[in-house]
Amino acid sequence: MYATVMHGPGDVRFEQVADPKIEKPTDAIIKLSATCICGSDLWPYRGISTQEGPAHMGHEYCGIVVEVGSEVHSVRPGQFVVGSFCISDNTCPHCSFGFQSSCMQREFMTGAQAPYARVPLADGTLVGTDDLPDADMIPHMLAVSDVLGTGWYAADAAQVRAGGTVVVVGDGAVGLMGVLAASQMGAGRIITMSRHAPRQQLAREFGATDIVVERGEEGIARIMDLTKGIGADSVLECVGLGESMEQAMGVCRPGGTIGYVGVPHGVSFDGQQLFFKQQRMLGGPAPVRRFLPDLMDRVLADAIQPGKVFDLVLPIEQVAEGYKAMDERRAIKTLLRVDA
Amino acid sequence: MYATVMHGPGDVRFEQVADPKIEKPTDAIIKLSATCICGSDLWPYRGISTQEGPAHMGHEYCGIVVEVGSEVHSVRPGQFVVGSFCISDNTCPHCSFGFQSSCMQREFMTGAQAPYARVPLADGTLVGTDDLPDADMIPHMLAVSDVLGTGWYAADAAQVRAGGTVVVVGDGAVGLMGVLAASQMGAGRIITMSRHAPRQQLAREFGATDIVVERGEEGIARIMDLTKGIGADSVLECVGLGESMEQAMGVCRPGGTIGYVGVPHGVSFDGQQLFFKQQRMLGGPAPVRRFLPDLMDRVLADAIQPGKVFDLVLPIEQVAEGYKAMDERRAIKTLLRVDA
Repeated sequence: MYATVMHGPGDVRFEQVADPKIEKPTDAIIKLSATCICGSDLWPYRGISTQEGPAHMGHEYCGIVVEVGSEVHSVRPGQFVVGSFCISDNTCPHCSFGFQSSCMQREFMTGAQAPYARVPLADGTLVGTDDLPDADMIPHMLAVSDVLGTGWYAADAAQVRAGGTVVVVGDGAVGLMGVLAASQMGAGRIITMSRHAPRQQLAREFGATDIVVERGEEGIARIMDLTKGIGADSVLECVGLGESMEQAMGVCRPGGTIGYVGVPHGVSFDGQQLFFKQQRMLGGPAPVRRFLPDLMDRVLADAIQPGKVFDLVLPIEQVAEGYKAMDERRAIKTLLRVDA
Repeated sequence: MYATVMHGPGDVRFEQVADPKIEKPTDAIIKLSATCICGSDLWPYRGISTQEGPAHMGHEYCGIVVEVGSEVHSVRPGQFVVGSFCISDNTCPHCSFGFQSSCMQREFMTGAQAPYARVPLADGTLVGTDDLPDADMIPHMLAVSDVLGTGWYAADAAQVRAGGTVVVVGDGAVGLMGVLAASQMGAGRIITMSRHAPRQQLAREFGATDIVVERGEEGIARIMDLTKGIGADSVLECVGLGESMEQAMGVCRPGGTIGYVGVPHGVSFDGQQLFFKQQRMLGGPAPVRRFLPDLMDRVLADAIQPGKVFDLVLPIEQVAEGYKAMDERRAIKTLLRVDA
């Protein structure tokens, strides 16, 4: 089959690769209903994180099971499934504790920007639906796999409470999903930091009550002003850079909580500063598996439309253009159509 | 009066100073029933943190109110009171949120290693009892003021739960109080890191179920072994050095929580390491005021005896020897008798 391979920074190709096949009895092969490009795919694309040799890209996926290994019992061929970007057995102590993204058998999904993909530990990783969802549900279901699940975790980690004041740092796809999550969790006020009109509009649609366009010290001052000098109960840090983390720490109240889901690049913390700020912090790769059944139900009930975050749709053959558009911030997030 | 003044590292003197007096209408003057030396007093004593000029030492206190300012209404002369080392109004948004140690009017108590002391914001800071407690209750009441309150906060910040597995890093007075707190909160297993026999014994008395004498990588391996490779649900970091923080991070399970109450000295965190460890963290000066009423009730009901942590009792005139004994680890914590 043809699939997406990154050969180096800026060099994404749709080229022939080996068809995925069952390698272990716990594997499943799925036919993708759609796939997409993640903000984290831009780290190696931009050369900010390094990779060795060509990499099969893609870790967000939903689709139809076509084959399962002999030990797979929870999903069956023909069934529609969604999985997390973190492969997990969903039975180990870390999974049972709700942190499937730190599963003792954790792997990171790869190779999902393709018509077919192999999903390891299928029983633990995949969640199936009773019926095949309608085509218009596919973008929403796909969003659950990573970008919504990650925004949801940011809000969960930040202990968003009904009536609470929330700040979302980052207006990328994950930040926008964080707004949606905070709104679903009943936050009283959701302040989004964004200076891009289309993203501001989407943020409002997802539940943002205030938009702050200022950044740095000015952004902090604006939010402290909006919160009467108190700061936010919950802050979602959805970028992963030093500047965004400072922003988050600058607007979180003492005793408040920062959920950080942008993989930190060049971020470090001074222990004494952290101590006296007295902010609760929890980050990490999102344990999307914990949230999957609930989020899929919300999508199927039409309570949420996270797929609105896809503002560019391309046939998978044009994946390179999809990366380029996101890199140049012409697109928030690119959905790749798989019509094979 | 004579009181304790630190003139520089290693130079503690009991010398004549001005009597404390009401400076603001929200002040109270108390006659100390007893006072003590804090582990944090050793930072400047050892020259690890610097101070400018002579400092009036002491921030742990309980005693009898002798005079109040015109705006003080919640305590009255003749009443026995306990206060926190953090002065707080107990009404601002941060106080209402349970973080009185980040009160918008926060001050740090000073000058309590003395027969008399001034307590600012007396209404917010002090908690009185109906009756004068018996003399044998004084050490326990004094412990509530900081060392127990701080150990309690460590356990609270570390989200100790009934039945949970807890690790306490640090066998100083705060660490031992952390053991007591975790035990009171119903922890199922409390693993204490300690290599000093008298401290081990006290830890057991306070509720420790396991003692680990190894440190560093060996200490981590031992605890991972004890927890079947899972790690602890809650870790109390009660030291504040890089090595102890690494110890804490090395034994906390993903999704577990580290409460850190040792003021960090020379500690920094790498963002990406913190991210992938996926541990919740909350530190800071303890909001003892939040816990005071409950902890004083527990003491008066004889449910806890935190004063056992004082293993050296000296008349306040010998305060210099008290510092020396703690510095040389001959004493866990020194109580200073005030018989004036």
